[in-house]
Amino acid sequence: MNLESIGIEAKAMARYVKKLTGKEKNEVLLTCAEALESNSAYILAENQKDMTKADESRSAFNDRLMLNDQRISSMAEGLRKVARLEDPINETLYMKALPNGLQVGEKRTPIGVVGMIYEARPNVTVDAFGLCFKSGNSSILRGGSEALHSNTALVEVLQNAIEKLGHHKTVMQFITDPSREIVRQFMRLNQYIDVLVPRGGVELIKTIAENSTIPVIETGVGNCHIYVDEFADLDKAVKIIINAKTQRPSVCNACEKVLIHEEIASIFVPMLCQALSKCGVEIRGDHQVRSFFSEAKPATEEDWHTEYLDMIIGIKVVKAFEWAVDHIHQYSGGHSEAILTESYNNAQRFLAEIDSAAVYVNASTRFTDGEEFGLGAEIGISTQKLHARGPMGLKALTTTKFIILGDGQIRV
Amino acid sequence: MNLESIGIEAKAMARYVKKLTGKEKNEVLLTCAEALESNSAYILAENQKDMTKADESRSAFNDRLMLNDQRISSMAEGLRKVARLEDPINETLYMKALPNGLQVGEKRTPIGVVGMIYEARPNVTVDAFGLCFKSGNSSILRGGSEALHSNTALVEVLQNAIEKLGHHKTVMQFITDPSREIVRQFMRLNQYIDVLVPRGGVELIKTIAENSTIPVIETGVGNCHIYVDEFADLDKAVKIIINAKTQRPSVCNACEKVLIHEEIASIFVPMLCQALSKCGVEIRGDHQVRSFFSEAKPATEEDWHTEYLDMIIGIKVVKAFEWAVDHIHQYSGGHSEAILTESYNNAQRFLAEIDSAAVYVNASTRFTDGEEFGLGAEIGISTQKLHARGPMGLKALTTTKFIILGDGQIRV
Repeated sequence: MNLESIGIEAKAMARYVKKLTGKEKNEVLLTCAEALESNSAYILAENQKDMTKADESRSAFNDRLMLNDQRISSMAEGLRKVARLEDPINETLYMKALPNGLQVGEKRTPIGVVGMIYEARPNVTVDAFGLCFKSGNSSILRGGSEALHSNTALVEVLQNAIEKLGHHKTVMQFITDPSREIVRQFMRLNQYIDVLVPRGGVELIKTIAENSTIPVIETGVGNCHIYVDEFADLDKAVKIIINAKTQRPSVCNACEKVLIHEEIASIFVPMLCQALSKCGVEIRGDHQVRSFFSEAKPATEEDWHTEYLDMIIGIKVVKAFEWAVDHIHQYSGGHSEAILTESYNNAQRFLAEIDSAAVYVNASTRFTDGEEFGLGAEIGISTQKLHARGPMGLKALTTTKFIILGDGQIRV
Repeated sequence: MNLESIGIEAKAMARYVKKLTGKEKNEVLLTCAEALESNSAYILAENQKDMTKADESRSAFNDRLMLNDQRISSMAEGLRKVARLEDPINETLYMKALPNGLQVGEKRTPIGVVGMIYEARPNVTVDAFGLCFKSGNSSILRGGSEALHSNTALVEVLQNAIEKLGHHKTVMQFITDPSREIVRQFMRLNQYIDVLVPRGGVELIKTIAENSTIPVIETGVGNCHIYVDEFADLDKAVKIIINAKTQRPSVCNACEKVLIHEEIASIFVPMLCQALSKCGVEIRGDHQVRSFFSEAKPATEEDWHTEYLDMIIGIKVVKAFEWAVDHIHQYSGGHSEAILTESYNNAQRFLAEIDSAAVYVNASTRFTDGEEFGLGAEIGISTQKLHARGPMGLKALTTTKFIILGDGQIRV
């Protein structure tokens, strides 16, 4: 597999996709959706090959790898949904007249070539293609080797549908080489790729952020905190924390840590810990938490840093608002944090001082998601500060350019 | 010099500056402006030490290094101008209600810690501090070793003024160590610095983009093209090209290459070349250009890649619109390109197809500049596609965060 030639092709295809109209792009997306459904038997057979090879001990992992008719329909529905979203390309953000008569404005344009490196879930292949294509970009995808048969089948079905409509099928390319060496080469193709979006575990994202010469948008590392202050509605607080921890513990917007104001600790710690225990959550607490709830295991320094992605939670008692804010600044991954309070002042201070992608008052952190926030779809959740922050929809896959209309102006 | 402790301090100061009100920040900027003017004798004496050491053979370089009363006033005026700009921080971009009653919005916040690495001009020290501070960021600056005395004096004057107002003077820190090794360490402080903005020559920017573990905003590499199509007003075209090439040839928005449609080549090539020659511009042309203007030197492949930043220009005759677009995509640095034409269709096509930060119709590329575009001030011109593109004003030094206001919502 020659990565260089994939890069050259992707760059040429970026110019091709950029010129397609919204109508042409939607036609491709809808045709692809149909093709997925009408080729489901083939896709499922190929997925079965991956499942046969899968390590039986990793049941959560295998669940994500597994496809069935319902999951194929849901991928197709995802493409139809993207087709229904407004075309973000060629929107003129503003156009103003300068004193010298020049008209200057900014226009939204595609980024160019988007690279994605991701792990097991085959649906990412379809989602990523749909979002990159709708936003006028060509894409190069590299899925995990465990899903190679599934991804190859999905790409084949999509590319055939694209080609049947008379377009170049290479508007989306897939790297089939399962070696790690190819990932290393991929992330150094900065001559051809404009942005690289890794999706997966902490290790994958860290490796790419540190070694890529292509600008990277880091996604989805959490360690989300909920701070319960002395003015919280305690019943509401228990419900929110139970939801944020247990509704889907394996994802990046799940709550991993709870900070509790000292003044309510003697009442709220046992109340919360009993409720969490009942749901099967393992509790790791500081010494004050353990003095109010003896079943809690001791939390170590490492616990405060850890994103469990599991039915485990770390709980700490803090002396004051400032301590909670300091703790969050020190240990958070900058994803989502919430304050539970009925105090107007503390709510405002938390919103102003906490420096994370999503800052909540009185709600579960589980809402940090492109669809929940009304962006229509999501290619990932950015936890960095440049370019895109929080859930990334179609606009995160675009850039702008200045447009200047003159009639002979020169600079004096 | 302990870079680690500079980083830790900068991170603490980011939280401090973020909380200052617009009024407090403006008071600092105005006081700093006054301090520069009232300490001008000291600053000029220190600048003299740099000038004494300067290599006499580099006159353009020394001109940029040299300070005088007028230049100090102009730095002070720059700070006053930044003070007059609207505070970009805490603007809520939108706030919408979701069906479940949650209110979700985005708010503009500072990036945090901004690092800058730049070359000779001491005024960058003052400009960068002003823009970073107004946008609520703390900053770490590293100027060129040739301007060390000047920069140290400027920083001392600014920091004293900041401290006199009762603020921490470390809201802006300066790296005085002149070694290259310190730059290498600086660009790896990703634990403390949120964005690194290099300003200077191609080599500096390339080194930083390739070696930094901090996200970088690449600035200011040009190689700008002007395409004169067969429907151009030729008199207007000569005036625009002369302006774009000669008004200030040493800067990144100067025109470096002209592409001319074949159909007008026999008339326009001699017309343009004579005018350029008269201004002292050296012409390097392809074989067609040389057949119409024999004094032109032959242009090599390397010429098409080169940003001369000098009184030299490369000229090429192209067979068609598409050839001009292809040439630009192949050789341009993605900074600024212009088409000169009276054809509506060609103007629209050029605007749509050219993928540069600024795309012009019938005007000089020299306008690509934050002040000219009405951004108020500029920290550099981004030639990358992520985060900021083209001239970067205060908003390029900010990010956003999602704010979510609930009353107990949980995800179902």
